[in-house]
Amino acid sequence: MNKAAILHKPGWNYVYPLDRNTLKIRLKAAKNDLQEVKVIFGSRYDGKAPYNVKKMELVASDGLYDYFETSITMDDNRFRYLFYLSDGSEGIWFTEKGFSNIKPGKSFGYGEYFQYPVINEGDIFSIPEWVQDAVFYQVFPERFNNGNTDNDPDRIRPWGAKPESDSFFGGDLEGIIKKLDYLENLGVNALYLNPIFSSTSNHKYNIDDFYKVDPSFGNKEILKKLVVEVHRRGIRVILDAVFNHSGFNFFAFKDVRENGASSKYSDWFFIDNYPVKTTPPVNYDTFANDVIDMPKLNTSNPEVQDYLLGAAEYWLNEVDIDGWRLDVADEVDHNFWRKFRERVKKIKPNAYIVGEIWHNSEKWLQGDQFDAIMNYPLEMSVLDFFAYKKIGPGEFSNRLVRNWMLYQDRVNYSMLNLLDSHDTRRLINFFSGEKELMKLAVLFQFTYPGAPMIYYGDEVGIEGEDDPDCRRCMVWDIEKQDKDLYKYYQKLISLRHELIPLRRGDYQPIVIDEIKNTYGFLRSYEDESIVVIINNSPLSQKYTLAGNLFGYKKEISNYLDD
Amino acid sequence: MNKAAILHKPGWNYVYPLDRNTLKIRLKAAKNDLQEVKVIFGSRYDGKAPYNVKKMELVASDGLYDYFETSITMDDNRFRYLFYLSDGSEGIWFTEKGFSNIKPGKSFGYGEYFQYPVINEGDIFSIPEWVQDAVFYQVFPERFNNGNTDNDPDRIRPWGAKPESDSFFGGDLEGIIKKLDYLENLGVNALYLNPIFSSTSNHKYNIDDFYKVDPSFGNKEILKKLVVEVHRRGIRVILDAVFNHSGFNFFAFKDVRENGASSKYSDWFFIDNYPVKTTPPVNYDTFANDVIDMPKLNTSNPEVQDYLLGAAEYWLNEVDIDGWRLDVADEVDHNFWRKFRERVKKIKPNAYIVGEIWHNSEKWLQGDQFDAIMNYPLEMSVLDFFAYKKIGPGEFSNRLVRNWMLYQDRVNYSMLNLLDSHDTRRLINFFSGEKELMKLAVLFQFTYPGAPMIYYGDEVGIEGEDDPDCRRCMVWDIEKQDKDLYKYYQKLISLRHELIPLRRGDYQPIVIDEIKNTYGFLRSYEDESIVVIINNSPLSQKYTLAGNLFGYKKEISNYLDD
Ligand SMILES: [Ca+2]
Ligand SMILES: [Ca+2]
Repeated sequence: MNKAAILHKPGWNYVYPLDRNTLKIRLKAAKNDLQEVKVIFGSRYDGKAPYNVKKMELVASDGLYDYFETSITMDDNRFRYLFYLSDGSEGIWFTEKGFSNIKPGKSFGYGEYFQYPVINEGDIFSIPEWVQDAVFYQVFPERFNNGNTDNDPDRIRPWGAKPESDSFFGGDLEGIIKKLDYLENLGVNALYLNPIFSSTSNHKYNIDDFYKVDPSFGNKEILKKLVVEVHRRGIRVILDAVFNHSGFNFFAFKDVRENGASSKYSDWFFIDNYPVKTTPPVNYDTFANDVIDMPKLNTSNPEVQDYLLGAAEYWLNEVDIDGWRLDVADEVDHNFWRKFRERVKKIKPNAYIVGEIWHNSEKWLQGDQFDAIMNYPLEMSVLDFFAYKKIGPGEFSNRLVRNWMLYQDRVNYSMLNLLDSHDTRRLINFFSGEKELMKLAVLFQFTYPGAPMIYYGDEVGIEGEDDPDCRRCMVWDIEKQDKDLYKYYQKLISLRHELIPLRRGDYQPIVIDEIKNTYGFLRSYEDESIVVIINNSPLSQKYTLAGNLFGYKKEISNYLDD
Repeated sequence: MNKAAILHKPGWNYVYPLDRNTLKIRLKAAKNDLQEVKVIFGSRYDGKAPYNVKKMELVASDGLYDYFETSITMDDNRFRYLFYLSDGSEGIWFTEKGFSNIKPGKSFGYGEYFQYPVINEGDIFSIPEWVQDAVFYQVFPERFNNGNTDNDPDRIRPWGAKPESDSFFGGDLEGIIKKLDYLENLGVNALYLNPIFSSTSNHKYNIDDFYKVDPSFGNKEILKKLVVEVHRRGIRVILDAVFNHSGFNFFAFKDVRENGASSKYSDWFFIDNYPVKTTPPVNYDTFANDVIDMPKLNTSNPEVQDYLLGAAEYWLNEVDIDGWRLDVADEVDHNFWRKFRERVKKIKPNAYIVGEIWHNSEKWLQGDQFDAIMNYPLEMSVLDFFAYKKIGPGEFSNRLVRNWMLYQDRVNYSMLNLLDSHDTRRLINFFSGEKELMKLAVLFQFTYPGAPMIYYGDEVGIEGEDDPDCRRCMVWDIEKQDKDLYKYYQKLISLRHELIPLRRGDYQPIVIDEIKNTYGFLRSYEDESIVVIINNSPLSQKYTLAGNLFGYKKEISNYLDD
């Protein structure tokens, strides 16, 4: 037995509460090593050794590991437990203190069991239910639709011209309101807007006033109207919280620039020395390197916290938004995010908090900070498999499993699953224009657990290389829209709304075929099941589903054909 | 290479900041598997692939694993990194995405590196420095000294009689004040008092008023005087916070008992149905099972939080205590403890917060909740090695390493290292009266990293089986005190104060001899080093220290001989 590879931790994604009396338990072992895994559990305050026994199921494997899971329930909610592991030849017990050949019983001290001391309500990870049912649509407001030419910035370029980093085209909130019928018709039921607060740039990630809608986008009343209109259609909307840094003309940074060390805002930033030097190399911390107009905010400073958390609350209270997307979320301190979560959820318990993190996000997804992240790790796996063909179905599956096993199930079901964004090239460009392959990736996106998100215009075939090219104007001329692609997205969206297994169902790979280059999976929810088999090869291929796949006979229909 | 056994996580005890530009990095591998481990690191915002290379040292091993560590520093505080691992025949790179035979460079995507996105001040685990220099003394106030017979409970038993669960002897705060010369003479510089707030029991773990000193112990003014007197002697004092449950006559529980479902305090507890039934089996959650006079508090309720956190603040503000020991700490929800830490540290940044947890405590020791725990896992290992002889020096070392590797170094140096308490039998009883063996264990306790704690009276030879027998009255009759033992403790305490390596030094095992049953280690701090070699066998044994043990010639003296 490869004991050194066996991992269980008394917390995190290895054991977590589903409700006040139930724990989900996970154990990781070297691939193909263990034949039998059982959890033996009891009450922490029983005089007796634990005696409840439950088999743990092999739920997934990747290249290196097998993952075993089960859930255990007791009337008492104070658990102690240990594992029995067998590789066919050797059977051992595994406790907090390590491995033992001794059968548990009197010889086991109280101190040796794993403990889940109590399931407190406050420790159950609560994520808004609606996210699992959401199909998101990301809007970059400056480029979506110009609804009011009176608020246009000076010298805007003609709609549809090639965007440069500093181009303006006049898009605004009224423009979005005017296109809500379009979004409703497409079928999305959640919006994510890139930043809309007072800022000198077209992307508005350098915010000068966190309490004010940028005048070229509208004002608070128009934002309020947008949210009302959106909600009237059963659509939710989340905004972009840029709390890592401010803009250059943010009042506090302005004060520091003008008054130097004597400014009462000097501790709002990280300034090496005075006077503040605003030509590169600058003498203050910024987002990335020397991004002059993005001075990093000191989010450990209680005054900065009050200002920013106040803004988060303000927009929830004033215009009733449904959540926040957090920019550069992994460079802001954890305590700040903990306070953020507490204050946001107090106002709106079902607000969605989703961080921009491109990497392992375990530290932020334990229930005390975010609900989920923008699932860039998933995007990268999808592109490697479908677009770059760098990996086959086996490694694709391994990566999905590895990423899945980092988090609690409810987090995985609430991920924001994107395939491109304002920070990457356009999806069709990842595929070098190969639309059929892109459609395959999108099919996967819409049938995988987590909320899919469409970057505005992908559904009508907008192209674009890296920023700024990926931020082209939305194409409203019907003649220039890719109608086939639009109908494909519309179909997938309606399927996702229609078929609960795609949203809530278990996920189980059933085809991993390196030779055929096919990957298939089953999504099951109660008595409904969906089979998805993806042919990632250029050849046409045939699959005959075994009648017993679902444990009973069932008519199979292909939902993508009308 | 046993790849499945290799573990590094981007956070927790595997990578954590020492200051704003330095990370401590740890990697775990199967024992004797890797010959070379390097970390390759760079700035997150460098265009280039990481190019700084640092060798990681094998710092410790246990039965299953080798642990490699180093620290890395950059001017930029935003890190990305990967590992190079070699077992002599195979060399591979290890990233967030897994293992690769490809040499890092252009072929590595940005997405593959491990990330430490930024070292924010707010994420650096800050623990009071003084704890490393502390020698604690635990006082169970009802049994330490009766300083004022006017406040005695009714029908107290004669001092020194055998205690029963419900016995009273009249000990109080004035009694402690009168014995501060004794404590100063012994040499301790920190006190931990079991609960002192208004309560019907002798142990006072069932508190009826968290804002009031129990009248049989004194009052706020006397407590204030105690703290002033203690501080005047350079001694710190921490109190016992019992926030998991209240007492039976706590105003809120009384209200619920009287008014049932209509009580405005019904959500302060976990009550299954009404009326409240106070004979077993009770219909409300309690500490352990059916402990009628300890109803569990709902610490997720903001009103309960205000009451309890207010009390934590009150005693810091009013009498200037130096920290809190947290009772049943692992059964109170994490969010409560996060708020507790924030509010306590705001009033007194160098307050010590130490939880009563007998098990793996990783979830509480990440910087957002406690500073350390009462180190019961250490106690159990010490007893198994020295008292029960269940394990030899090899397994003793393994257990120390395993426990050490759960936490950040600064936590390990701030642990509250006890060998017995009011919740166990007396130390001498663990040793069935074999004082010389007990002294060996105490020697280890005083030379190991972390703050040693003496349970009142152990130093004069008080005996006692499990509670209530372990709570016997302190022996003040000099004729009845074990003077030899007292002098031994006094000597060890003064050595610890005198020799900084014992408090702050590195810890490195240098002798693990199963045959001789000896265990030895080196504690080094700057140019001072201490060697401790413990002979856990009944035979006399000789060790000749190699002159090059410290890398240079040095006079060795045996500090325990005068
Ligand atoms: Ca406009
Ligand atoms: Ca008294």
